[in-house]
Amino acid sequence: MRALSSLRQAFEQYRQDYELGQEPTGLYDPIHYIMSNGGKRLRPLLALLGAQLFRDRIDPAFPVALAVEVFHNFSLVHDDIMDEAPLRRGKPAVHSHFGLNAGILSGDAMLILAYRCLAEAGDAPTVSHLLRVFNQVALEVCEGQQYDVDFETRRDVTIPNYIRMIELKTAALIGGSLEMGAVTVGAPLKQAGYLRTFGRHIGIAFQLQDDILDTFGDPEQFGKRVGGDIANNKKTFLILKAQQLADGQDAQRLDELMSGKPADEEAKIAEVTALLRKLKIPEWAEKLKEKYQQQAFSALSLVEVEGARKQPLADLAKQLLSRQK
Amino acid sequence: MRALSSLRQAFEQYRQDYELGQEPTGLYDPIHYIMSNGGKRLRPLLALLGAQLFRDRIDPAFPVALAVEVFHNFSLVHDDIMDEAPLRRGKPAVHSHFGLNAGILSGDAMLILAYRCLAEAGDAPTVSHLLRVFNQVALEVCEGQQYDVDFETRRDVTIPNYIRMIELKTAALIGGSLEMGAVTVGAPLKQAGYLRTFGRHIGIAFQLQDDILDTFGDPEQFGKRVGGDIANNKKTFLILKAQQLADGQDAQRLDELMSGKPADEEAKIAEVTALLRKLKIPEWAEKLKEKYQQQAFSALSLVEVEGARKQPLADLAKQLLSRQK
Repeated sequence: MRALSSLRQAFEQYRQDYELGQEPTGLYDPIHYIMSNGGKRLRPLLALLGAQLFRDRIDPAFPVALAVEVFHNFSLVHDDIMDEAPLRRGKPAVHSHFGLNAGILSGDAMLILAYRCLAEAGDAPTVSHLLRVFNQVALEVCEGQQYDVDFETRRDVTIPNYIRMIELKTAALIGGSLEMGAVTVGAPLKQAGYLRTFGRHIGIAFQLQDDILDTFGDPEQFGKRVGGDIANNKKTFLILKAQQLADGQDAQRLDELMSGKPADEEAKIAEVTALLRKLKIPEWAEKLKEKYQQQAFSALSLVEVEGARKQPLADLAKQLLSRQK
Repeated sequence: MRALSSLRQAFEQYRQDYELGQEPTGLYDPIHYIMSNGGKRLRPLLALLGAQLFRDRIDPAFPVALAVEVFHNFSLVHDDIMDEAPLRRGKPAVHSHFGLNAGILSGDAMLILAYRCLAEAGDAPTVSHLLRVFNQVALEVCEGQQYDVDFETRRDVTIPNYIRMIELKTAALIGGSLEMGAVTVGAPLKQAGYLRTFGRHIGIAFQLQDDILDTFGDPEQFGKRVGGDIANNKKTFLILKAQQLADGQDAQRLDELMSGKPADEEAKIAEVTALLRKLKIPEWAEKLKEKYQQQAFSALSLVEVEGARKQPLADLAKQLLSRQK
């Protein structure tokens, strides 16, 4: 069994050695640009850990690890176009650097390359199984992205709607990475299913934490602009819960603030944040995050391997969910 | 064995009954819009004919037929964005009708849906084989599109460069449709390979014919604007061959005309067309098209099934390649 750091290093080596393509450079340069532009490599690590739960030899999991990372980066390239985001990981986004058309076409090629990696992950029954799981997850990610876009203009979004959206957009791929990693080493269907459930719940908890940090995080440690969700009128769990709890004047004021785009964004962020604190929204969000975290670990406890094998995965999940506030 | 019209009808029925998806409507409505917006259904027919060469029962070929049609329509949706084309088959293009973001995201979902269809086309060894073929073809289509974009601004494009570009962008999927159809009914590798070669050469001949018609076609029968390639300075075979043959003043004038965007487009089209006629470019193009057509039929003759089984496929190919001029 290998430690997290060793797996991370092995994946980076595999990724660098893997030939995604060279010509035409207009197609492949943007792909190399985004793929070598850092990132936490969370999903490939999960694929490798999903395999390592069941076997020490996890070679067939590497193509799957690369597939989920290439797919994740494809979704970032296209999402950044749709969100008109100029930056990604502190550098110009692909479409800012190479142009809109390169962003679209290179993204398409990455989606196909993800499938090409998948096709290398074992014998025919394994590949055919992986293909079904991956198709489902990839489609869910698109559906989640569409709901996210829809929610910006809808005023009737419920908390369950929101949770479902983040499950599709973010958590499905986290669960799928674990499940597919397990499939590559022949894990029983039921066991791989527990891992999927674990991953989906961790994914939802992870996104809820991201929502909390976006508003209440330490600006020096968060990495992104604190208050960005509020400035963009994003109806995250924090806002939806506040709308549910606020009454009278507070409710009306929250509605006003979260539908306008005032010149003084900082004042708006400060006022909404104060309102959320008054309604104890951080505590509600923390409680919900913990609920999903607990459900995740219940699912993990059902996986029938000795506890020691689960340790690196449990460590990674806890690490992810205990980032600074 | 079924006739072309019967196969076409059976495919339309299959397509209409197949559930691509419904919710969120922002994602799936654009997909239904483009998929039900006509088109020749050439690629699915080729997939069905590729299967029918070897077997009368071709049920497993239908998911592949749908996969190649969904993929083809995905490529149209994204290409229309990149080309800023407002219309497709006489109706607003997806991005004109639903917006840029819907065009990008629905296109992505269609690419995934093509893979989902593929995953339904038989047992694991068949699906795994289809996946490898499809990955290769899909990536080639992206590469071809990139070369097409690159060629707009490059001045050193050769005729072999151009042929390779249309092979990737257009012919690869035509060959792949035939090959994958054959794979679904268990055709021997070598036989499926001949079909791929047949399709690739037919595809190149088909694109050369399209180039000829774009400049020399009958405006009433062509369906698109005659002279569009010239107006857009597209370096098709016609122009590349003319550049090779023209000397002195003609060469210089052709260069001038094909790099500018004059106010009077019709005058430019008329002058370039006259120059091409003077250099006997239609005859050169016709000759090259016939060369590819002959190579195609040589490959088809190697397929080891009785001649009668090849008839519908040969008929379709000839039909395609004898459109009005």
